[in-house]
Amino acid sequence: MLDEKDWFTEIADEAGSAFSLRVRRRLHQEQSRFQTIEVYETERFGNLMVIDGFTMLSSRENFLYHEMLAHPVLLTHPQPRRVAIIGGGDCGTLREVLRHHEVESAVQIDIDERVTRVAEEFFPELTESNDDPRATLLFEDGIRWMREAPAESLDVIIIDSTDPVGHAEGLFSTAFYQDCHRALAPGGLLIQQSESPLYHLEIIRGIYADLRQAGFCDQATLFFPQTIYPSGWWSATMTSRDRPLPPFRAETADALPFPTRYYTAEIHRAALAQPAFFKQALAAGSDQGSDQAEA
Amino acid sequence: MLDEKDWFTEIADEAGSAFSLRVRRRLHQEQSRFQTIEVYETERFGNLMVIDGFTMLSSRENFLYHEMLAHPVLLTHPQPRRVAIIGGGDCGTLREVLRHHEVESAVQIDIDERVTRVAEEFFPELTESNDDPRATLLFEDGIRWMREAPAESLDVIIIDSTDPVGHAEGLFSTAFYQDCHRALAPGGLLIQQSESPLYHLEIIRGIYADLRQAGFCDQATLFFPQTIYPSGWWSATMTSRDRPLPPFRAETADALPFPTRYYTAEIHRAALAQPAFFKQALAAGSDQGSDQAEA
Repeated sequence: MLDEKDWFTEIADEAGSAFSLRVRRRLHQEQSRFQTIEVYETERFGNLMVIDGFTMLSSRENFLYHEMLAHPVLLTHPQPRRVAIIGGGDCGTLREVLRHHEVESAVQIDIDERVTRVAEEFFPELTESNDDPRATLLFEDGIRWMREAPAESLDVIIIDSTDPVGHAEGLFSTAFYQDCHRALAPGGLLIQQSESPLYHLEIIRGIYADLRQAGFCDQATLFFPQTIYPSGWWSATMTSRDRPLPPFRAETADALPFPTRYYTAEIHRAALAQPAFFKQALAAGSDQGSDQAEA
Repeated sequence: MLDEKDWFTEIADEAGSAFSLRVRRRLHQEQSRFQTIEVYETERFGNLMVIDGFTMLSSRENFLYHEMLAHPVLLTHPQPRRVAIIGGGDCGTLREVLRHHEVESAVQIDIDERVTRVAEEFFPELTESNDDPRATLLFEDGIRWMREAPAESLDVIIIDSTDPVGHAEGLFSTAFYQDCHRALAPGGLLIQQSESPLYHLEIIRGIYADLRQAGFCDQATLFFPQTIYPSGWWSATMTSRDRPLPPFRAETADALPFPTRYYTAEIHRAALAQPAFFKQALAAGSDQGSDQAEA
């Protein structure tokens, strides 16, 4: 029995599972214009940010997510100069993006400035690159921003969103992807966090279908562990504006000029390996294999 | 707040985290000579077996663990004819082992016959190969069995144990590994489930040290998702009796004559990729990188 005052719990209702972290105290709570933001001090995971009751990140393991959202797509694009991050208000993805010296500008567009301000206070390590002259932080609707972005003005788009409910729902749609497609320059790439391979195959299949309908021409899903997200296993789906996804720049990845805690060239290759059930489900157009309770 | 009557919860005390599954009812509970065995009917994970309060397996995701404990090691050995499974009383690993036609004999040695009887009743799909004439099920102390096994009588040893506490503790020790080493024929391989890369780096480091001290000559850890185990991310460590681990038989893996739900040749390669922090920690001899709460 978990005593509510000692634990933060997130229930994944769709899967009948829950994940909990033992907390010492709540450090922060506020209702922003868009959502409820909380920060807990946990016993073993450092600080924990929670938005509308869903775990967003912890000090201990956010490196897995942020590295995998930034490095594979940037090392797949031959020359990623102009990058946009939609969402990502905690600035952890931005920090990883700015480690790449090829990047000349990185714009983060999060609807909720309060997420960034809370991150500055409780996760200062994630916001340490915000003063980089290449970085621009905008606090506005990412969907509208993308609609108004000049055509062919971006090399890489990273969609670092919350789950596809509420105000993030529009980030998982053909209309938004069409705007992304238009804003990408030839050879441009997009990556979208794409939920749990075990719990959310239907969402991933929807992302594939929407991306194709929006004109994107090749998709690849990357898999990685993510302890505090439902199922402990997460994914990101990468796609290309107008040509097959090129092989990644393995030589650069093999001798990265910056430190990583999870990502390596070997991990990049590994993340692209598709589990048998996933391959079958995407080929079959139905989610046999994982979403069934019985073998 | 999780109501105790609707949820089964396992607390990972060492990490201040917990994982819960929503249950409909308890189907079985008994105190065997060795441990408490329970089975729950869950809402979305099929049946769940719990031993001494720790989740062992669920119908929904045991395929990840059983495939990864059986296929990589059997496809790394050039001709795995004689296989021993220490532990593994639920018979799921045995079933995967018996899918390999090269296997002429597979002996499963679990101390607790009740685990197998309970599996027969509540996880019949896992025990469906128990009548295979190549299979022998023994219910006795695996440590003693290995001590008395004829020298050079096995090609592959799979240690499918519970956590290194209580009666399974002796399966994580130099003395036991020495007996395994003696029982393996030239070219023989061993694989041991080796806990969570995020939570249990010290245990994995201990396994490496014990294996080396026992005379094993090369180690490789495989990583895979495992939703119901602490951190949702698990590992198995493979080692070789007397020569560097050979490359796996990728051609066979590419055209497996049996179905899998997770394992593919691509997944095999991917599972061997070492996260940056893991590589650093094993090289450094200290667990920098993961076991720290702060980045």
